[in-house]
Amino acid sequence: MSCVFCAIVAGEAPAIRIYEDDGYVAILDIRPFTRGHTLVIPKRHTVDLTDTPPETCADLVRIGQRIAKAARRSGLHADGNNVVINDGKAAFQSVLHIHLHVVPRQSGDKLAFAKGMLVRRDPDREETGRLLREALAEIDADAQEDAP
Amino acid sequence: MSCVFCAIVAGEAPAIRIYEDDGYVAILDIRPFTRGHTLVIPKRHTVDLTDTPPETCADLVRIGQRIAKAARRSGLHADGNNVVINDGKAAFQSVLHIHLHVVPRQSGDKLAFAKGMLVRRDPDREETGRLLREALAEIDADAQEDAP
Ligand SMILES: [Zn+2]
Ligand SMILES: [Zn+2]
Repeated sequence: MSCVFCAIVAGEAPAIRIYEDDGYVAILDIRPFTRGHTLVIPKRHTVDLTDTPPETCADLVRIGQRIAKAARRSGLHADGNNVVINDGKAAFQSVLHIHLHVVPRQSGDKLAFAKGMLVRRDPDREETGRLLREALAEIDADAQEDAP
Repeated sequence: MSCVFCAIVAGEAPAIRIYEDDGYVAILDIRPFTRGHTLVIPKRHTVDLTDTPPETCADLVRIGQRIAKAARRSGLHADGNNVVINDGKAAFQSVLHIHLHVVPRQSGDKLAFAKGMLVRRDPDREETGRLLREALAEIDADAQEDAP
């Protein structure tokens, strides 16, 4: 399979999964800018904003918002997030299967962030995945309590 | 009014408008990274991803996708776009009223992009606005032709 994200979706390539539903999977970026850098990927292959249905883009950001909230709440202690779709090679899109980045940030991390853009390595990916999944589960539990 | 985006929504501060509907307005960034750098803003004030309804986030990206397509089609000749929500001060959110950036990019613009991040000036904002509005109108016309 030539598309690495299609291979991950099919279970034919490894990834640390943060979230999955019928249409989407969220995984840790293997070359993270910051700890917890996550990619939300539609299971159905499209390339960029020119060929992806608007409803898919909307779903990507809905899921990304939940992951951004989880990053704040989690043991990663994020104070914010950059949520990004790079649309096209000209915009630094590296894998040509559309995806949304959630990059957790901390106050005053400017230097660490710049360093992270060069190093792009998480020394404990399994623990990072666990922390995000745990916080997502807490958010889900809250949402169910809030439901009428 | 203390929020500059609420002032723009209310028509009390100037802006070059690219798009407007009942719930949203899209304007040119006054300090653009690249030519055509646009902000999509919900009319109702919320701060970041922690307090903005998921449906609002979905609308922001739906409108942003159309502007990204328009930037490619327009006389700005974009080859791609960075579509970004900076969620929180820690993530470089400068105006604390949530907004989505659409930053048109061109192949091989890496150096111009870096320069643009420092200079952040468009010498002909009116023309940039006209080009984007024109392309959006063309996309709308196409969509109506495609409708069943
Ligand atoms: Zn694919
Ligand atoms: Zn406001």
